[in-house]
This record gives sequence, C-alpha cells and structure tokens, in this order.
Amino acid sequence: MVLMRRELGDVLRAERRDQQRSLRDVSAAASVSLGYLSEIERGEKEASSELLGSICDALGMPLSVVLHELADRVAVVERLSSPVALTVSVADDFNGVSASAA
Amino acid sequence: MVLMRRELGDVLRAERRDQQRSLRDVSAAASVSLGYLSEIERGEKEASSELLGSICDALGMPLSVVLHELADRVAVVERLSSPVALTVSVADDFNGVSASAA
Repeated sequence: MVLMRRELGDVLRAERRDQQRSLRDVSAAASVSLGYLSEIERGEKEASSELLGSICDALGMPLSVVLHELADRVAVVERLSSPVALTVSVADDFNGVSASAA
Repeated sequence: MVLMRRELGDVLRAERRDQQRSLRDVSAAASVSLGYLSEIERGEKEASSELLGSICDALGMPLSVVLHELADRVAVVERLSSPVALTVSVADDFNGVSASAA
C-alpha cells in the first residue's frame, strides 16, 4: 500500500531543499517543532490539516500545488509497484520433447 | 485556511455516492466503523494514511486519483477564498461636498 504521509514528506522536504532553507527556518515559520517537522518529512508522523496548511504557508506554496505534486508522485509510485503482466509462451519444441519422453 | 480533511471528505463522499454505495457497505469493505467513516466524510476526523489507503481500496480507486481530485478541488476553493482587489474611485462631487461642508 502506498502511504500518503511518506510521499507527502518527500514532497515537503524536496520543496524546502529547493528553496535552500533549513529545518530550523521552516519549522519556526510554521510554528512547529523542528523535531516534528523532521518526522513529517521522513513520513513518520501524519501532519494534521492545520499543520499542513501552516507548513505550506511557511514554504509560500498553496496547498493545491503541494497536493498536485503529491498526486503526481503517488501515481509514479503506484505504477512502479503495480504487478506487471508477463506473457510466457511455451515453445512447441518443449511440448514435443515432453510428449516423446512420456 | 483551506483544510485538507474537509475537501478530502467531500471527495470521498462524492465518490461513494457516485457508486450508489452506502456508508455501511464502504465502511465494511474498508474495515472501519461506519461512524468513523462518516466523520471522515464530514471532514471532522483526519484519516491516517493507512485508513485512507483502505478507503481508496474499498472504493476501487487508486490513491493518486483521489489526490488529483482533491488537489483540483482545493485549487477551486483557494481561488474562491482569495482576496479580490477592488478599485474604489472617489467621485469628485463627494470631495466637493466635503470641502463646502467643512
């Protein structure tokens, strides 16, 4: 199962790093402890809707933009983790060998 | 602040109703109590990532599809709730009246 909090954490961390900002800076701007923000970025804690809104504000990103990035990322993970259908064709030769050995 | 859980609840309820399924049916399929699913649909409770995954499975929808719908919905709410710049022009007449009354 693809877990939303893991992908969301990756999106938030990637955005913070793109902005070259520290955990300390963003956690202070979002009024959340540094340790908690770090756990959210690692996908270890769920962010409440209020806290997610504060983090988006601190990053200067609309929630909708974060959610679109998240949805795109989850779609990629789903494709990578979906079962792949393999077509296995049994060669005629093999049947012939089996038949003659029987 | 746009709260993710409210919009997510609306997305999940709309999808369940589109499928003409009851809270009882989907809550049983997702192994969640009927009351809890109802609270999630009303945006009163946060769904954990595991539970959200189970609800998506119960609805037969990939998480990425639910998240794309959610992101689109949040974008609309953001546009509706963003401040609108109004240009107010003060009529010359008003200034004239004020000046003569002073």
